[in-house]
Amino acid sequence: MSPPLQPLFAQRVARLRTHMAETGLDAWLVFAPEHLRYLFNYSGEAACGLIGTRGSWLVTDYRFIEQAEEECMHHEWRRGVATELLCRDRQRERLGQVLRRLLADIGAARLGYEAGHVSVAQWTEISADLHDFDLLPATDFLVQARRVKDAWEQQQMRQAAALADAALEALRPDIRLGQSERQMATRLEQLLQSLGSEGLSFPTILGFGPRSALPHSAPSDRPLQRGDLVVLDFGAVVNGYRSDMTRSHVAGPALPWQQRMYDTVSRAQQAALALLKPGISGSVLSEASSSVLAASEFAAHAGPGLGHGVGLVLHEQPFMNSGCASVLRAGEVVTVEPGLYIRGQGGVRIEDDALLLDTGHEILSRAHRDFELPL
Amino acid sequence: MSPPLQPLFAQRVARLRTHMAETGLDAWLVFAPEHLRYLFNYSGEAACGLIGTRGSWLVTDYRFIEQAEEECMHHEWRRGVATELLCRDRQRERLGQVLRRLLADIGAARLGYEAGHVSVAQWTEISADLHDFDLLPATDFLVQARRVKDAWEQQQMRQAAALADAALEALRPDIRLGQSERQMATRLEQLLQSLGSEGLSFPTILGFGPRSALPHSAPSDRPLQRGDLVVLDFGAVVNGYRSDMTRSHVAGPALPWQQRMYDTVSRAQQAALALLKPGISGSVLSEASSSVLAASEFAAHAGPGLGHGVGLVLHEQPFMNSGCASVLRAGEVVTVEPGLYIRGQGGVRIEDDALLLDTGHEILSRAHRDFELPL
Repeated sequence: MSPPLQPLFAQRVARLRTHMAETGLDAWLVFAPEHLRYLFNYSGEAACGLIGTRGSWLVTDYRFIEQAEEECMHHEWRRGVATELLCRDRQRERLGQVLRRLLADIGAARLGYEAGHVSVAQWTEISADLHDFDLLPATDFLVQARRVKDAWEQQQMRQAAALADAALEALRPDIRLGQSERQMATRLEQLLQSLGSEGLSFPTILGFGPRSALPHSAPSDRPLQRGDLVVLDFGAVVNGYRSDMTRSHVAGPALPWQQRMYDTVSRAQQAALALLKPGISGSVLSEASSSVLAASEFAAHAGPGLGHGVGLVLHEQPFMNSGCASVLRAGEVVTVEPGLYIRGQGGVRIEDDALLLDTGHEILSRAHRDFELPL
Repeated sequence: MSPPLQPLFAQRVARLRTHMAETGLDAWLVFAPEHLRYLFNYSGEAACGLIGTRGSWLVTDYRFIEQAEEECMHHEWRRGVATELLCRDRQRERLGQVLRRLLADIGAARLGYEAGHVSVAQWTEISADLHDFDLLPATDFLVQARRVKDAWEQQQMRQAAALADAALEALRPDIRLGQSERQMATRLEQLLQSLGSEGLSFPTILGFGPRSALPHSAPSDRPLQRGDLVVLDFGAVVNGYRSDMTRSHVAGPALPWQQRMYDTVSRAQQAALALLKPGISGSVLSEASSSVLAASEFAAHAGPGLGHGVGLVLHEQPFMNSGCASVLRAGEVVTVEPGLYIRGQGGVRIEDDALLLDTGHEILSRAHRDFELPL
């Protein structure tokens, strides 16, 4: 019998240490919340992590120390991963002082720090205590490592996508003419929560009529009117892993131009999906999709960019556009989301999450894609 | 008849320009989302702002440009505040290049930038294009300016607090033994949304029994049991302004130690509130409260810190603890939230939002504070 799937914390830390050895780093200072979760299983706030060549440390304060004990020390997932917790008294000791002591104790000389996840002001303060050490900005290794999801991570991504599908399915019978964007978004968010999403993957994007042409429309009080285009973009979260899906509809029977618009976006998405497998680059995928939009009557209204990686972070590497040389690998999850945005009239975007398999891909988001709402 | 209350954008920008003149800055680069809202009325993402000695500019991309037009240019609130929008093509032009062009156009030499709200990595990239200018980290002026809320802001804070009160009132009849922390939190969050909160002020903190001793307990599947202490900390958002309130309860009749614990925290809060008016320092308030806890049988379990400013940001200046020399002024809104946390047994925290008036204060959060839940 195969053991139950678990996130492979020890393996993740080991891979980081290999990278540290290759690049001459004695320690790695973790600031990104997603990396605290990825390496330490920590989901709280106000913490930073330190990975040395042997031990690892998490520094937080009294507000989060019990959560850190539960998640980083006593959780079954973290068994066998040596970690120490430090509870800092913020009034008595600066973070830089704690780090200086730790680094001196382990005899570190060269420290990599996540320059993408600490502000200039914070780092100015922290690094003032660390002048005895070589400080090297280092973020990219973990960002790249997180792109490929292991079996457990894939399971979380599938569950998040399925949960979003179920929420949308439950929402559909409640959609009414006259309902506002805000009411519909609230109802959807309540369904996501009731079904077990850990909060929202991101604030729901929902636009009716002309507002559907805003790629990031925040729900307003505009009521749904017959003939409106509707763009709904939302997601669920399971164990920190996010889904991201967009569906586009028309409220009632589609006008010919609306139907052509929808069909164009649908074909643009299919053009990319037809090529989606390991070995392909983001730019080739992006061109496949955008050339369909560019050849259509709606060419002037095409949104740039095709999609992005998704995982512990909503928008992560790779960012797929015409300049994206990055080549996709099995285990990555990317969104494929071409869109048309006609100012003052409306928009259509169709977005799915796809997991790259050894020989193709698996679409994780499976919600209905019928264009016309029966209103 | 007095004109309707509005946020005073022109006045805010004028005050910033006075500060810039005093400190020899020709331009101010805004990265903090709360300052984009405070100065530009912008509530989207992926933008930065530039305030020159005369004009002001907001730089974003195609995803948010229509929202920016609506909020920064055409909104009645922004009438009379000269602003230009720039829609950057992220594949063709770096943000640093756009800023260099703008700064050259206005003949700026010394640029203040919000070092607390840009990462080291981002700033390294941006500043590489700005070597012709003096770049000076500058954040604190706006952080301090935001402390004192004008009449319109006070109205938003009152509404946010009232909305949270109403949500808690609606929740109370639904509280049942056996209900999990997650279920109760979800129900409360649904009520907040239905009542009109713009999302959540922060992820709800809710702990039953021993978990109530975690100052930042994330809701779990633990069911409510008779005799449990319950700590519930949550908030609403109105036009970006946040509320932050904690109520503590016991599920059923209180045991003597629980009642003494609650009374102690209540007295600690009252000791601070009795002194709360303009002219008092955070440290004096904090000592007034912590000395009550320290004199009690629960001294060993007192949480440090008394409270914090709240507004467009949940935790903002002043941070009131024993080392806080900052003196409070009329128009500031602070939380007053002493707490006791007995590991393995439970916690009690009582938190209210108080607006400082010329001659005292007004409690904004008015929800019930009865300790025993009738279960």
